[in-house]
Amino acid sequence: MKQLNIGVIGLGRIGRLHVENLQNLVPEANVIAGAEVYIDNVREWAEERKLPNLYQDYNEVLANPEVDAVVIATSTDTHAEVAIAAAKAGKQIFCEKPIDSNIDRIKEVLAEVDKAGVLFQTGFNRRFDHNFKRVHDIVESGEIGDPHIIRVTSRDPAPPPVEYVKVSGGIFFDMMIHDFDMVRYLSQSEALEVSAHGAVLIDPAIGEAGDIDTAVVTLKMANGALAVIDNSRQAVYGYDQRVEVFGSAGIAKADNDRPSTVEVSTDQSVNLDKIPYFFLDRYTGAFVDQFKYFIQACHGETKLMVDGIDGLRAVEIAQAATTSLKEGRAVKL
Amino acid sequence: MKQLNIGVIGLGRIGRLHVENLQNLVPEANVIAGAEVYIDNVREWAEERKLPNLYQDYNEVLANPEVDAVVIATSTDTHAEVAIAAAKAGKQIFCEKPIDSNIDRIKEVLAEVDKAGVLFQTGFNRRFDHNFKRVHDIVESGEIGDPHIIRVTSRDPAPPPVEYVKVSGGIFFDMMIHDFDMVRYLSQSEALEVSAHGAVLIDPAIGEAGDIDTAVVTLKMANGALAVIDNSRQAVYGYDQRVEVFGSAGIAKADNDRPSTVEVSTDQSVNLDKIPYFFLDRYTGAFVDQFKYFIQACHGETKLMVDGIDGLRAVEIAQAATTSLKEGRAVKL
Amino acid sequence: MKQLNIGVIGLGRIGRLHVENLQNLVPEANVIAGAEVYIDNVREWAEERKLPNLYQDYNEVLANPEVDAVVIATSTDTHAEVAIAAAKAGKQIFCEKPIDSNIDRIKEVLAEVDKAGVLFQTGFNRRFDHNFKRVHDIVESGEIGDPHIIRVTSRDPAPPPVEYVKVSGGIFFDMMIHDFDMVRYLSQSEALEVSAHGAVLIDPAIGEAGDIDTAVVTLKMANGALAVIDNSRQAVYGYDQRVEVFGSAGIAKADNDRPSTVEVSTDQSVNLDKIPYFFLDRYTGAFVDQFKYFIQACHGETKLMVDGIDGLRAVEIAQAATTSLKEGRAVKL
Amino acid sequence: MKQLNIGVIGLGRIGRLHVENLQNLVPEANVIAGAEVYIDNVREWAEERKLPNLYQDYNEVLANPEVDAVVIATSTDTHAEVAIAAAKAGKQIFCEKPIDSNIDRIKEVLAEVDKAGVLFQTGFNRRFDHNFKRVHDIVESGEIGDPHIIRVTSRDPAPPPVEYVKVSGGIFFDMMIHDFDMVRYLSQSEALEVSAHGAVLIDPAIGEAGDIDTAVVTLKMANGALAVIDNSRQAVYGYDQRVEVFGSAGIAKADNDRPSTVEVSTDQSVNLDKIPYFFLDRYTGAFVDQFKYFIQACHGETKLMVDGIDGLRAVEIAQAATTSLKEGRAVKL
Repeated sequence: MKQLNIGVIGLGRIGRLHVENLQNLVPEANVIAGAEVYIDNVREWAEERKLPNLYQDYNEVLANPEVDAVVIATSTDTHAEVAIAAAKAGKQIFCEKPIDSNIDRIKEVLAEVDKAGVLFQTGFNRRFDHNFKRVHDIVESGEIGDPHIIRVTSRDPAPPPVEYVKVSGGIFFDMMIHDFDMVRYLSQSEALEVSAHGAVLIDPAIGEAGDIDTAVVTLKMANGALAVIDNSRQAVYGYDQRVEVFGSAGIAKADNDRPSTVEVSTDQSVNLDKIPYFFLDRYTGAFVDQFKYFIQACHGETKLMVDGIDGLRAVEIAQAATTSLKEGRAVKL
Repeated sequence: MKQLNIGVIGLGRIGRLHVENLQNLVPEANVIAGAEVYIDNVREWAEERKLPNLYQDYNEVLANPEVDAVVIATSTDTHAEVAIAAAKAGKQIFCEKPIDSNIDRIKEVLAEVDKAGVLFQTGFNRRFDHNFKRVHDIVESGEIGDPHIIRVTSRDPAPPPVEYVKVSGGIFFDMMIHDFDMVRYLSQSEALEVSAHGAVLIDPAIGEAGDIDTAVVTLKMANGALAVIDNSRQAVYGYDQRVEVFGSAGIAKADNDRPSTVEVSTDQSVNLDKIPYFFLDRYTGAFVDQFKYFIQACHGETKLMVDGIDGLRAVEIAQAATTSLKEGRAVKL
Repeated sequence: MKQLNIGVIGLGRIGRLHVENLQNLVPEANVIAGAEVYIDNVREWAEERKLPNLYQDYNEVLANPEVDAVVIATSTDTHAEVAIAAAKAGKQIFCEKPIDSNIDRIKEVLAEVDKAGVLFQTGFNRRFDHNFKRVHDIVESGEIGDPHIIRVTSRDPAPPPVEYVKVSGGIFFDMMIHDFDMVRYLSQSEALEVSAHGAVLIDPAIGEAGDIDTAVVTLKMANGALAVIDNSRQAVYGYDQRVEVFGSAGIAKADNDRPSTVEVSTDQSVNLDKIPYFFLDRYTGAFVDQFKYFIQACHGETKLMVDGIDGLRAVEIAQAATTSLKEGRAVKL
Repeated sequence: MKQLNIGVIGLGRIGRLHVENLQNLVPEANVIAGAEVYIDNVREWAEERKLPNLYQDYNEVLANPEVDAVVIATSTDTHAEVAIAAAKAGKQIFCEKPIDSNIDRIKEVLAEVDKAGVLFQTGFNRRFDHNFKRVHDIVESGEIGDPHIIRVTSRDPAPPPVEYVKVSGGIFFDMMIHDFDMVRYLSQSEALEVSAHGAVLIDPAIGEAGDIDTAVVTLKMANGALAVIDNSRQAVYGYDQRVEVFGSAGIAKADNDRPSTVEVSTDQSVNLDKIPYFFLDRYTGAFVDQFKYFIQACHGETKLMVDGIDGLRAVEIAQAATTSLKEGRAVKL
């Protein structure tokens, strides 16, 4: 089996998760290095995982000639700096989303990536979800004709801390950004216009922090399709993730997964299993598969399923949605 | 069993359907009179159905002292005139929707109804649908908490003739008006603001006639909820009618009915039954039940489940949606 | 519309139900006569239903030359007598099941029917159920190949009174007889051998009355298929009626109906509607459709979907199952 | 994390699968040794998997003092010999099913296990399946009352080679043995009596080899419940694995898994995903979880979920079913 030597930069929760998934579930991956500023926090973990090289300075990962590709899982504000350095070092790049909150900065990254001729995959893992990818593939096959209406429902089981909301850029940047990408992925088209509607229905503190917790956004796409996304920061019944593409020749719908298929009936009720509560339970396969595809692309065996432009576009839409909400009008892209 | 003597005014397709349903499926109803301007078209049918009195002039129905209540199923432009006359005659009134396309004219009708102290039910039959009523009842019970997001999907199997589109007032008046009422019914709140988005994706002739065939409309409700409706004039897979209420304590969703529960699996595919294609197949029970509730209300045993104000509000929203689409902005109500 | 003049003999619960269904839901039927020994019990009802002729003696129905066909809904022990008289009178016959508990007596009836050249339909209404008929039609179409395994689940919501069990002939005659017919209908083959297994798990009184309340019966069919039926006299969650045909080229399964499609999720549970509790709720359509097909057959427009031989075979299998259970061995037919 | 040192004896297809699952998905396991008679076949694989010790003679695994527990995945005819040696060496034992085809030989194994005081888990992986375990847990919780009817459907996607059928002991030993265990697991009771019915409907060569390819078996359980199992060696639509427990207070049903939740509707059909075709796709989680529970039991943190007696009982039932089929009568246990 052809393997790829990978260095993971940033070993916080998501970085460590990536290392573990790569080691356990992606035999094509060979994690040979990791970097973490707070290196003392991860020494024990790195030893347990038998990580061959652990650095404090990510430049050492980039300087390691054995490393073919890097996974950037640092805090968002450092993505661009690390990505530019990685591109200059000639490494293939997998970068967590959002690339940056500043559109010009993203463009700068992508320009360096272009110049270096390396691959750049943005971490939109949901494109690799078994349900959503199947809907995408059906759209692509032409089976349901031209997309007319795309619906994305994405609701978290519980709101993040208000402290997080204050720095995240708001619901369009920290949550709906996935859905903006999903609409582009499923419609196979670009957004022309965004209209955002929002409300504070879960927690007044979110409103006081300048954000909303419930949102409905409508997009007009270049191919004529209308898309509508709804988000809530709190679905008490679990992590609600569904999509639907209605087309000229049919419809494809993806419902939530359930832990089991069991149905229990008594004289009181008929019960199904509750849906998963946590995003890792829901997207386990997607977290793994995004790397399988990335490695194949690094070997030149396939094209990237999601690239840097995809990372840029989602941020552009999030920005437009923010403006639309503030100004109470449709915003063109 | 306490019966109600009913006269049906207007014996076109929908009027005759009402008579047949009342006779066959509503034992509490006693259809004792009918009126139809084109009386010769319905003589044979009336004889077959053993209709005791058939008139050409609807005033004869109103003059018949045996008649307790009238069903108005004439063409839309005559609803108001007949309704006002019926109110003055002291008859209980069931009136097909829309009451009128002119808001002032509707108000005039409702004022006469008030003055006469008669009941007035608008023909929003979908409120009586077994699926949607169940969702409504769950919302009302408080089981899912306060409504946060209401989603209504309503798609016809095939577009109406372009000639119809030209006179109907457009998709918001001839189709989404049901859904405006459904949002009010499910949210138990009033619309404050409407934002309409539309496209012509099915048939350019519809666009040339000044209408759209695909629409997504977002509403902000007085209780804070956001609602989103999507319509298409052509769902090739059947008559797609679904609703969902997402609340602070849970969610209630109604899927489409299917003719049978049969699932067939071969080495090629797994197939379920297609959904009904025609609105009468889908809403049979609702067409009957709206009269059962109306008759109960006439006997003073229950309140009207849908009244004249409901008929007025839906037209007001349709008007606002039309303006929103034309002017590309949210419109307050 | 071509109509058939029908006389209904026996106006107990099921006879009156047939009259009401025929009047309300089968416009092709014209109920012109009824007969009931306890005539005083039904006079008021007959007046309400505007029944043109009400007799105490069923022979008056048979003597009425306007009557084309009779529906026999008397007590089981009189079916044969009435049916033979009806055949001699040249009436088309619809007869409730079982025709008789005595196989020779059934053969006598069928011989008279043959001699008279009239039609004879046994009241196996479940063949007309939308779900089961669809499975049958799929088998017949060849889509799932040759039947290999047929599964029928049929469970009542609550046991009948023990008094009933004492005279009914037992679970194989009063309950599983429907399922024996269903196996023949779905497999399109005859039973060669029956093995019955039973237990008393619901109510000891049923056991004391010489019957069982839980049963599993396996049949070997002439076409090689194996069939298995399970019955329980008490499914606390409702009236559980499911079938499945597994064939060489696929499988067709019919699940229970539900009153609505609504799914409700909270932080506690995910709930679907309970299945219907009562057989009339479940088989409403089947009760109507069996007459529509019967009338078509009377007009020579189609063949009978279930005839007298079908009535005979089910009783033969019930008898064999009774023997199998008693003697603890497979019984050949 | 407390780890267990494991040696895997027999590195054929299933043995290698166990090693890979243990290494990748069971962090509590530390695979430190493997043994394979045909050692040359697995040298390269063992190197890739970084297996610390590879032996030809399984006694070297048993002699290794570091090894806490062994997994026995050799051919069935050597299970007993290896298990006895392992017990004598004081190792905890996980043994693939069937333990042996000879009941006395199994008893001998279990006696040695008892004497040595080691744990012995039989490889009935399906008990650990997310769907079936959930049904079991619901039964155990008492939610559905006393079990009355247990139904197990288990159908392979394609028949094994006839050569295999000739030596496997037949369908009751190579296939339904899982279902015999499942009935015991779900009913929480022992079989008292078995009645077997069979047919050759898939491939006459299977019949010529003295076996059947379609089977329905009914069991009477000590707690009064009736159980019915159906098997087919060829379900063209996939690997059909369903169970149902009907009890005095309700019912629990487990349907098949599907690769995705996607539903596609066109004007032609409504399609769901096909069910998995291969047993590894269906039981991936179960193959992993059986080891997680085994390791917990080895650490004394829980009881075994399936032990040696379970392995014995299933073989006893298979034997009785074989006799029942041959002699055409119910066989007591």
